[in-house]
Amino acid sequence: MTAAAATALDDLRAALPADVLVTEPAALEVARADRSGHSSTGAPLAVVEATEVAHVQAAMRWASAHGVAVVPRGAGTGLAGGANAGPGELVVSVDRMRRLLDVSLVDQTCTVEPGIRNLELDELLAGHGLWWPPDPASRAISTVGGNIATNAGGLLCAKHGVTREWVLSLDVVLADGELIRTGHRTVKGVTGLDLTALVIGSEGTLGIVVGAVLKLRPAVTGAVWTVGAFFSDEERAAAACTAITAARLRPAIMELVDREGVGMLAAYTGEPLAGAFVLLQADEAGAEEVARTAAAMLEAHGGTVEVTDDPARSDLLVQVRRQVHFALESFGTILVEDVSVPRSRMADMFRICRDAAARHGVRLPVTCHAGDGNLHPTFVFEGGGPDGTEPPAAVWAAADEVFQAAIALGGTLTGEHGVGTLKRRWLVDELGERQLALQHAIKAAFDPQGILNPGKAL
Amino acid sequence: MTAAAATALDDLRAALPADVLVTEPAALEVARADRSGHSSTGAPLAVVEATEVAHVQAAMRWASAHGVAVVPRGAGTGLAGGANAGPGELVVSVDRMRRLLDVSLVDQTCTVEPGIRNLELDELLAGHGLWWPPDPASRAISTVGGNIATNAGGLLCAKHGVTREWVLSLDVVLADGELIRTGHRTVKGVTGLDLTALVIGSEGTLGIVVGAVLKLRPAVTGAVWTVGAFFSDEERAAAACTAITAARLRPAIMELVDREGVGMLAAYTGEPLAGAFVLLQADEAGAEEVARTAAAMLEAHGGTVEVTDDPARSDLLVQVRRQVHFALESFGTILVEDVSVPRSRMADMFRICRDAAARHGVRLPVTCHAGDGNLHPTFVFEGGGPDGTEPPAAVWAAADEVFQAAIALGGTLTGEHGVGTLKRRWLVDELGERQLALQHAIKAAFDPQGILNPGKAL
Ligand SMILES: Cc1cc2nc3c(=O)[nH]c(=O)nc-3n(C[C@H](O)[C@H](O)[C@H](O)COP(=O)(O)OP(=O)(O)OC[C@H]3O[C@@H](n4cnc5c(N)ncnc54)[C@H](O)[C@@H]3O)c2cc1C
Ligand SMILES: Cc1cc2nc3c(=O)[nH]c(=O)nc-3n(C[C@H](O)[C@H](O)[C@H](O)COP(=O)(O)OP(=O)(O)OC[C@H]3O[C@@H](n4cnc5c(N)ncnc54)[C@H](O)[C@@H]3O)c2cc1C
Repeated sequence: MTAAAATALDDLRAALPADVLVTEPAALEVARADRSGHSSTGAPLAVVEATEVAHVQAAMRWASAHGVAVVPRGAGTGLAGGANAGPGELVVSVDRMRRLLDVSLVDQTCTVEPGIRNLELDELLAGHGLWWPPDPASRAISTVGGNIATNAGGLLCAKHGVTREWVLSLDVVLADGELIRTGHRTVKGVTGLDLTALVIGSEGTLGIVVGAVLKLRPAVTGAVWTVGAFFSDEERAAAACTAITAARLRPAIMELVDREGVGMLAAYTGEPLAGAFVLLQADEAGAEEVARTAAAMLEAHGGTVEVTDDPARSDLLVQVRRQVHFALESFGTILVEDVSVPRSRMADMFRICRDAAARHGVRLPVTCHAGDGNLHPTFVFEGGGPDGTEPPAAVWAAADEVFQAAIALGGTLTGEHGVGTLKRRWLVDELGERQLALQHAIKAAFDPQGILNPGKAL
Repeated sequence: MTAAAATALDDLRAALPADVLVTEPAALEVARADRSGHSSTGAPLAVVEATEVAHVQAAMRWASAHGVAVVPRGAGTGLAGGANAGPGELVVSVDRMRRLLDVSLVDQTCTVEPGIRNLELDELLAGHGLWWPPDPASRAISTVGGNIATNAGGLLCAKHGVTREWVLSLDVVLADGELIRTGHRTVKGVTGLDLTALVIGSEGTLGIVVGAVLKLRPAVTGAVWTVGAFFSDEERAAAACTAITAARLRPAIMELVDREGVGMLAAYTGEPLAGAFVLLQADEAGAEEVARTAAAMLEAHGGTVEVTDDPARSDLLVQVRRQVHFALESFGTILVEDVSVPRSRMADMFRICRDAAARHGVRLPVTCHAGDGNLHPTFVFEGGGPDGTEPPAAVWAAADEVFQAAIALGGTLTGEHGVGTLKRRWLVDELGERQLALQHAIKAAFDPQGILNPGKAL
């Protein structure tokens, strides 16, 4: 740190309680990386571990006065490098602001601080018979603020929607430290431009989310029915899922793991699993009928099918899907991609991934939220990772093919994880020059100095 | 028209087919007003009745070259004056661009031109077993592009959501005539800032919507159950509706008409109706149980209740709600307000409306989307209206009280109709200076000359 920076930091220290401004090397080291397998080139200046809105405001006032770049941070579970902070940057973490402030049964809303974990919130809401649907696979460890900043999806979003659909109002600290409240506490409202939606998914580039009013729905009641099915290959499995959507069934969960992914899971757990796996779950009134009809369709497409409403057995089937991520991690460094394609093109996308992997000699198991066409081709390789080393060139070459193909199929680079640092180079391919320019102009309206998460997302 | 304007218009005429640029006085007269009961101070320059995207682009290129203000227009059914065009302005109407371009069963999406009517679209989609949920009460006559521009709601949005939740991608002609495509054809996608959501509800101030990819869902199948209930007063009726939401029931429709509204309907139809009316409808699996449980709760709150699954009888009950608008219109000029409050404050809002009406001596029946706390207090008065006369001062005084109260209750000025020209003076009360400034900066990023619907919404 330069002498000038050290003096400047003293100003910030004076503005914050002693335990809020953290400069211990271990804490700075953690702030260099999220869960993308990438990290920054060195430690940031300091971490503000805010416990109140006023701390975030003080940090932003200081940062804009000194022209210091700020990296907002939740739990750091992101997969796009969005929370990775480097030399000269200040981290503003809302990890410790994790209270549920109120919940209203009648309004079916609640007010939270941004650091609350999905699972924590779910458990608190369950006591009221209410539920906040966004459920990334990381729900045990990710923050609601992080969900908002990335517009997170999850297993249940085919039926229940993504984060954007479940947020009514945001408290946002702007680049200069001013606090605004966007949106409404009401379930409907169209006063002015929709800044709430603009901030959702903006990956910390427009402001820091310090509070949110969430839209809730009644918790799902009644029996949940689960279907598991194994197929000889992923194209058949994808075709079966496509047929289920076309038959206008609405399962709550419909997931697909390709042969490679199932094979690696089998090696990890020692269980004798093989083939491509489809997991389907139906909830609410009519669940059994949806499950049985879907099961018959999976069978007709060549699947070996099991249907159950036994919670223990159901849990085992769900675990097949949920464990894949950890199985892949046990084989090396992983890079989780996140393309989304129209549901009719899922089988094509599986084939394209397999071909690209073969051509470039890389390992590329694929999981897929098959209810909405969102695939996670996951590169598994040696080296790279948190030490800052880049993935092998073959990985980027195959990734490039996968991205281009997704866009050509009418799809997108990122269905739910965000652009972060990792996908910026492909952004213009998808958006075009003019739309990118508009996005930059909006960014400038919020953050004229460009101090909020520079080099990310846009 | 000045000589300069006439010469300029010749340039536009040269750029468009003969029947696209319309200057007949009758057409210009129509373009002065929407259905708000207000109209502009005089006729606009001309109306471009576009039949292709290129016509809209040519119009915008011309308008930005000449610095002419443009008023986008769909079917002109808006209730906020947003489509009203005045002297010196060019109207760009997409009324004739009304084709359904494609529909995909598997992707559950369709691509439309903006001028297609909700009802037209519904009928075409029904053939595929699909459905686009936004359903303003004006669905027979309003355009999908108008729904998008105002983020329209409707009777079904308590359960099925507003327009924003059912649009994936937009084709937008910008102020300078360039065409961009926002969003994705995929059901999920987070690449860049969410310009789709930003354009939705922007009332023609950011660009002209010339195409949209809509998210569809399976058409509702199975019996629909309807409940009608009459109450001694609207507070009791509102309390019953609040209790139904708190009991975590999810009816598809829950509407409330106050005593004054029912009384005017009775006078209009000659039917012996009296009291405050609640309409409730349940669909999908479990409909009967939801309807019967809700009916029991309405009864427990003092309602006189009818439950039916007979389509003809059900239709009669729905007509009670749908006809109110026309009944009120038969009594004079109407000004439909659109406040939204947290669902727990509905009864308060009904009382406040009644008190304000009494204090200012105005007639103010109220209808309400009770499933989401969106009230339509509707002023009925003599004079005012399409001739450009202002409503009586007492109306504005009462409206002011109603707006201030809605904001104080944690609500908003407009749940679904938009700000238009009519509510601009209250905008800063709700948004605050800083947020309004941000909105203006975003507007400037899209439309630096300020030619798109000036004086509206922002
Ligand atoms: C095992 C595993 C499974 C996952 N599964 C899913 C999945 O199914 N779906 C999915 O969408 N994602 C998934 N993710 C990715 C990640 O967990 C989510 O994106 C999550 O929402 C990030 O939350 P976080 O608190 O960890 O955010 P961080 O990683 O801390 O931050 C993510 C981004 O948001 C910004 N940010 C964080 N908090 C704020 C704030 N308060 N204000 C402004 N900006 C902020 C950061 O600057 C960064 O750009 C998964 C991750 C893992 C490790
Ligand atoms: C009887 C009646 C009942 C109604 N019920 C409801 C209801 O339940 N819920 C509800 O939300 N509304 C309701 N409305 C209001 C209105 O019908 C809706 O807002 C409707 O969506 C407007 O569509 P339109 O095509 O008529 O738009 P217009 O009135 O032509 O325009 C409305 C606004 O959108 C802009 N605009 C229109 N088309 C475009 C485009 N393609 N690109 C950019 N900007 C455009 C205009 O400039 C204007 O600002 C009702 C109206 C009536 C008369």
